[in-house]
Amino acid sequence: MDKVTLDQHISRQFNSDLEHLKTQTLAMGGMVEQQLQNAMRALENGDSELALAVLETEKEVDAMEREIDEACTTVIARRQPAATDLRMILAVSRSIRDLERIGDEAQRIAKMAIGLSEEGGSPRGYVEARHIANGVRDSLRGCLDAFTRFDAQAARQTMGKDKQIDLDYRSAVRELITYMMEDPRSISRVMNVLWTLRALERIGDHAKNICEHVIFLVEGKDIRHTSPDG
Amino acid sequence: MDKVTLDQHISRQFNSDLEHLKTQTLAMGGMVEQQLQNAMRALENGDSELALAVLETEKEVDAMEREIDEACTTVIARRQPAATDLRMILAVSRSIRDLERIGDEAQRIAKMAIGLSEEGGSPRGYVEARHIANGVRDSLRGCLDAFTRFDAQAARQTMGKDKQIDLDYRSAVRELITYMMEDPRSISRVMNVLWTLRALERIGDHAKNICEHVIFLVEGKDIRHTSPDG
Repeated sequence: MDKVTLDQHISRQFNSDLEHLKTQTLAMGGMVEQQLQNAMRALENGDSELALAVLETEKEVDAMEREIDEACTTVIARRQPAATDLRMILAVSRSIRDLERIGDEAQRIAKMAIGLSEEGGSPRGYVEARHIANGVRDSLRGCLDAFTRFDAQAARQTMGKDKQIDLDYRSAVRELITYMMEDPRSISRVMNVLWTLRALERIGDHAKNICEHVIFLVEGKDIRHTSPDG
Repeated sequence: MDKVTLDQHISRQFNSDLEHLKTQTLAMGGMVEQQLQNAMRALENGDSELALAVLETEKEVDAMEREIDEACTTVIARRQPAATDLRMILAVSRSIRDLERIGDEAQRIAKMAIGLSEEGGSPRGYVEARHIANGVRDSLRGCLDAFTRFDAQAARQTMGKDKQIDLDYRSAVRELITYMMEDPRSISRVMNVLWTLRALERIGDHAKNICEHVIFLVEGKDIRHTSPDG
């Protein structure tokens, strides 16, 4: 093999490595999206079986994170990528960490769903939880779409929506605290709903982080701790 | 400059890059340790001024994270490190993210401290909070020490302590919920203490993550999602 052909071969191989990292990251994203959706459905329908199914997917998600992370390290060490390629690998390595945390929070929601289905009673706070969950689900979809298309603008748009989620979260927390004061017997139940809201808010934060990784990937600057349009 | 001298020069330069990354990471660790300590002191003494001082250090910590992170990317791109050196840089890049989150949680505690000092009243749950904060502070110290000495065994020992923190956290939450039920007028106050406990628990999680990064750095395998002695 002459030098040029070898270079092309290496480059093709490298591109296929990168493409593979991307595909796997999106597959992992799809898994945690499904976890979130099932955890919320389990909560709303008092479906402990579905909640248990969410808990069982944890190992798969964790294994996937480890696998992608090892692939990232291997690609950096073998191919010694520079500039955009390196940023792409670092963005993957960061994003899968956020995806794994989203999976963890979905697990927490599934556990609350089991607790709440055992306690029974009126689904106070569920409307708010569903509303926030819808916003969070859109954010997660948005960040994965932005990642798929390496689209910094779409990432910024998605990040902008996080503020609304935060506002909704705060208002729901205030409402539930008032409710506990009015009906102290409900405290234990409402606390479970509060932890659920908290988990949803965290998922929104992680989706926002992934948007930041996409912008870092595309534009090469680190935009954490600045405003979305900064 | 002949080839050998040039190589030595580059290698010295590279070592000094790595040493600098390590020193900066430990400096950042020291800053968030201080944030946590001040936030807890502000909470216990109802010292809003100290709490405000904690909030003001946020920008410094964030700037430090960005700076170290950029240095990591630059070193990878310029020096194309392999094996241990690459793992060291990746471990730094991961650890500073956890340190930054610890800073965020310390901020949350500082905000609760301000809220609680305005409300006044009996410091219910403070004993538990202080107890958990001591455990978390030890964990944070432990993970930074393990990082300083690249000591995987010390990292494992520190990780083992996280279980106790989790148990203490759970027991304190149960106690505070019981207390809210007994005295509904206290709900709003106790919720602030609960959020504080939650923040402390998260800090413990991040300290555990840093232990994992140290083990990854030293032993080259990814031990996330396995038991500390696995």
